Amino acid sequence: MLSREKLIDQIKLKRSFLCVGLDTDVDKIPDFLKSYPDPVLEFNRRIIDATQDLCIAYKPNAAFYEAMGIKGLQSLIDTYKYLPKDCLSIIDAKRGDIGNTSDNYAKAFFNEETTGMGFDAITVTPYMGNDSVTPYLKYDGKWVIILALTSSVGSKDFQYLETGNGFLYETVIQKANTWAGADRLMFVVGATKSTEFTNIRKYAPDNFLLVPGVGAQGGSLEEVCKYGMTPDCGLIVNASRSIIYASNGEDFAEAARAEALSLQKQMEAELQKAGII
Amino acid sequence: MLSREKLIDQIKLKRSFLCVGLDTDVDKIPDFLKSYPDPVLEFNRRIIDATQDLCIAYKPNAAFYEAMGIKGLQSLIDTYKYLPKDCLSIIDAKRGDIGNTSDNYAKAFFNEETTGMGFDAITVTPYMGNDSVTPYLKYDGKWVIILALTSSVGSKDFQYLETGNGFLYETVIQKANTWAGADRLMFVVGATKSTEFTNIRKYAPDNFLLVPGVGAQGGSLEEVCKYGMTPDCGLIVNASRSIIYASNGEDFAEAARAEALSLQKQMEAELQKAGII
Repeated sequence: MLSREKLIDQIKLKRSFLCVGLDTDVDKIPDFLKSYPDPVLEFNRRIIDATQDLCIAYKPNAAFYEAMGIKGLQSLIDTYKYLPKDCLSIIDAKRGDIGNTSDNYAKAFFNEETTGMGFDAITVTPYMGNDSVTPYLKYDGKWVIILALTSSVGSKDFQYLETGNGFLYETVIQKANTWAGADRLMFVVGATKSTEFTNIRKYAPDNFLLVPGVGAQGGSLEEVCKYGMTPDCGLIVNASRSIIYASNGEDFAEAARAEALSLQKQMEAELQKAGII
Repeated sequence: MLSREKLIDQIKLKRSFLCVGLDTDVDKIPDFLKSYPDPVLEFNRRIIDATQDLCIAYKPNAAFYEAMGIKGLQSLIDTYKYLPKDCLSIIDAKRGDIGNTSDNYAKAFFNEETTGMGFDAITVTPYMGNDSVTPYLKYDGKWVIILALTSSVGSKDFQYLETGNGFLYETVIQKANTWAGADRLMFVVGATKSTEFTNIRKYAPDNFLLVPGVGAQGGSLEEVCKYGMTPDCGLIVNASRSIIYASNGEDFAEAARAEALSLQKQMEAELQKAGII
């Protein structure tokens, strides 16, 4: 379990705010791994071994595991168990349902005794409001990461609707911040929208932001830091495909490390520039 | 697979538009079932046997199965396999992610060959827009059921925001109807908001609406029909807890049948009143 204080400590210690997204697609991993009993787990283990000193979080996306049925869920459980305890473990599940149902999603991902998974944090979609978020907060010290402004094309459809109180995504941030503090809530904000960070910081001055879209989706790390960094860093920047699929040969783990190292070096420079380290 | 035409035929044949929600919680099922190898599956089988001539759809909510880990996923797969083919099979998963990821959720629930599950329909949350919905539409004949106006307390937080073009939920319906037709798209609209149905029918004159909230959540079937029924019926009304937990003794399946029968009779009367049968 990583509290806000411990997370900030890890960022300073590792000179990094990198999250490695474990969106492991069995069709994209190197062929030579396919002889292992669980090729996805073997792939993840090697990626974790190669990157854990360079990142402060790992984020498997549930969809990639669910797509492989029972075998996939087992790979996810075993991957969870392999995650280093000094890193924030985030399940990117984007769940959202009524209270009674969200209680069950919380069990699924937070209650290790029953399901074998005890992630530190879960991503949640806000459409159903308060009761789709609060059930997760009953678990002491666990984090909820609410979708605010995503990096996809479809973000334009609803997130930028004017609500009379700013855009929908701004209203989501303001409202959600009345449900819990910056020690329990983070927001997803896509890196492809870096100029929006100034705006977001008006409503979420202290919350950590989980930022996808650097790398494969084309967002700029420098821009994100310029507009989004706080005195506590306040950023967890995720890269998935650009790291884990840096090579699909036998050197995939080394290539992943090189990619992660390059990002960590850029992050170190940004942390220094901001006087955080 | 149930096309729109076949669904309407089933409604007329069974004189019912009832969906039974299989939100099966292992802590709430009768004790005597606990000696079975898979108590949840045994419970579901008996509920299905007792209700399949009275309903036209079944809807397991994924959360209840995920909360039991690997064992729960196996129960869900085996429950899917047991569902009668003349009923619409809906997985209530409320997923929503970027296109690349939604492709994987579609595989998880639609690609029977890989995961053992080939549901006819999936519920999807609209916050991430177009690319969180369209990947499911690539599967010929499968349905996407988009959250519009839900029956929970939290629906007030965002769904009723004024967007300059009506409430957010109205904008969701209008926008989504540009992505596919009423033969592929349905919307979730809570029964507790029956007066809103008139409004919703302006934007969704032909879409089937999946209506939770009758029963345990207190919505009125009569009101829903008054404001929401179309010449094709256009309604699938779900009841979960009021049916499956009608009794927690050995007579649970008979009690479930009695509850389903009572709803079917009310539905038959409404279908007659509207001249559909």
